Amino acid sequence: MLVTLLTDFGDFYPGVMKGVILSLVPDAKIVDITHSIEPQNVFQGAFLLYHSYKFFGSAIHVAVVDPGVGGKRRAIVVETKHNYFVAPDNGLVYPSAKEDGIVRIFEIDSKISEIVGELSTTFHGRDIFAPATALLLKKDFRYFREIDEIKTLDIFEHSVAGNRVCGKVAFVDRFGNVVTNIPASAVMGAKGFILRGVEFPMVKCYEDVDIGKPLALIGSFGTLELSLREGNASEFLKIRKGEIELEVLR
Amino acid sequence: MLVTLLTDFGDFYPGVMKGVILSLVPDAKIVDITHSIEPQNVFQGAFLLYHSYKFFGSAIHVAVVDPGVGGKRRAIVVETKHNYFVAPDNGLVYPSAKEDGIVRIFEIDSKISEIVGELSTTFHGRDIFAPATALLLKKDFRYFREIDEIKTLDIFEHSVAGNRVCGKVAFVDRFGNVVTNIPASAVMGAKGFILRGVEFPMVKCYEDVDIGKPLALIGSFGTLELSLREGNASEFLKIRKGEIELEVLR
Amino acid sequence: MLVTLLTDFGDFYPGVMKGVILSLVPDAKIVDITHSIEPQNVFQGAFLLYHSYKFFGSAIHVAVVDPGVGGKRRAIVVETKHNYFVAPDNGLVYPSAKEDGIVRIFEIDSKISEIVGELSTTFHGRDIFAPATALLLKKDFRYFREIDEIKTLDIFEHSVAGNRVCGKVAFVDRFGNVVTNIPASAVMGAKGFILRGVEFPMVKCYEDVDIGKPLALIGSFGTLELSLREGNASEFLKIRKGEIELEVLR
Repeated sequence: MLVTLLTDFGDFYPGVMKGVILSLVPDAKIVDITHSIEPQNVFQGAFLLYHSYKFFGSAIHVAVVDPGVGGKRRAIVVETKHNYFVAPDNGLVYPSAKEDGIVRIFEIDSKISEIVGELSTTFHGRDIFAPATALLLKKDFRYFREIDEIKTLDIFEHSVAGNRVCGKVAFVDRFGNVVTNIPASAVMGAKGFILRGVEFPMVKCYEDVDIGKPLALIGSFGTLELSLREGNASEFLKIRKGEIELEVLR
Repeated sequence: MLVTLLTDFGDFYPGVMKGVILSLVPDAKIVDITHSIEPQNVFQGAFLLYHSYKFFGSAIHVAVVDPGVGGKRRAIVVETKHNYFVAPDNGLVYPSAKEDGIVRIFEIDSKISEIVGELSTTFHGRDIFAPATALLLKKDFRYFREIDEIKTLDIFEHSVAGNRVCGKVAFVDRFGNVVTNIPASAVMGAKGFILRGVEFPMVKCYEDVDIGKPLALIGSFGTLELSLREGNASEFLKIRKGEIELEVLR
Repeated sequence: MLVTLLTDFGDFYPGVMKGVILSLVPDAKIVDITHSIEPQNVFQGAFLLYHSYKFFGSAIHVAVVDPGVGGKRRAIVVETKHNYFVAPDNGLVYPSAKEDGIVRIFEIDSKISEIVGELSTTFHGRDIFAPATALLLKKDFRYFREIDEIKTLDIFEHSVAGNRVCGKVAFVDRFGNVVTNIPASAVMGAKGFILRGVEFPMVKCYEDVDIGKPLALIGSFGTLELSLREGNASEFLKIRKGEIELEVLR
């Protein structure tokens, strides 16, 4: 079974996790989804996992965005209809697991760190989640104890009132596209949006406006995105995260 | 057959492409060349693909630098003597394909997106190029229609006139080396170069000058590079792309 | 045998190295540890290799942080009890190799570049270390000549005097944690540290202080780290590398 990794670790730490997994299961196949989740941004991690896990068919998705590492939050494995999710219990994998259909939930005993021989308070990716992944690959549930509940998280929360629509910035990609969590259905029929006095006409694709001009479209997440054609909307708007409120032009 | 990826996608999106490919061909082997092409810089993508594809022997090279995504540009597969190239038809793979020897050219029918079940106007890496790659691995040409021509691109364009040599900045690497597209043959016998009043003596290797000092050499691309030894020439010169004109010292 | 890569190459160049290795050994399995070593920082490379190689069990570790590339430094292969290390002879792999137990040391003949057909003065990752790795995988020692010695490097150097402890910043991770090379044993019983007038209380885990507050702990490297909870200590302290001297509170 394929293993995917999604973390806010940046560089180096994911390599160590791969070392732990591969030393235990040499033929494991591991794919990076991203290691650039904004540090500690569980919402962003959950949003990007939700919009990627489904393209893998079936896999063990290891997701670590973990501001509570070393504290009291639990480490969990969630078995769903087609996948496993390995993560801290902070809502990170909830939207994905719920969509796929939760079958069983397990708490990972922190004693699993005896496999690696270390239990730091800062890097459970190495000490807990990586060995848990290796054991899942071996179908060894020795350190897993079935539990009833996991923390929930709503990544779809948004509101529409009059000519205002409110949501969250979910992701700023490398092009500076400001990806929101506002679904297409919430802005049906909109002709455009105004944010900070700038008009973003609703279009189908980038080429519908001149180079450098603002635009809005429903992007590959199925949600509203604000862009500058061949420019960087995030830098232009000085927006990287948080709530976003737009005036809707109809 | 090995699959390589070269894009300007940065993080996350390449992971989704891998998901699509691996869900269709679980034993596919995928290697990243780079996902840090400067956004929309087709020239840079073509230059770096040209200088990397040949080291893989034989592979399916998936290259996506795609300012025209969602518009009218075609999606293509180019079969060459030893490789396949999957890309938007904007010149990106032309220099590589031409060097390797073009055998057949195919247009990819956008209906191929029915495999993934989505056709966004912004992420054809996921909706078109990834499933096309999977089908190539399966030797399934159902969505490919042979065509006669692809867009060309000249990544070697440069000029020499008197004591001036003109070319383009092709790449600034992590060390700040300014890699040009000016071939060694155009600067044979040069003793050095002057740019913005700074002299870059022509040397064989970094250790030929003191730490921090400017130098020019023929680098691993076989082209002229400007560097500071253990420094960052790009930041020093405030150059990242575009035309470059040098005075040649003989 | 698994191959790992650790370099200061950033993007693109590692992809080319993989091309060379895979064209010679198509079923090679290659894992990135990191390509973000600070340019030319051999100490940092050695520190991070030391703290990662051991989690892979057994592998060929290819490490290239190589300020002397193209000059007189040797290229080496070190055979240890459980691993091989392929690197420039500048101390980079010494701490790891010594810990694992050095069995034999080889110099790589630069003629090995005839396999790739190129010998640049700037990219021995491609021209020398990648083909050497491929030959190791094939157990072909044709270009390797046994030698007696390699350059040493001390990554553990630190000092304690009165209420001062001195060491080095080894790594600043993506969270801005300032990872030092000062071992836990050197700061046993410390209640905290003062640096530039800021007090960093010694704690067990991040949650022991309020969000945004400074803290010190023994991190996943087994060494002293300075952090801000959910903040960036490196930016706060404007420290990224070099010596560090702390006042110890007892």
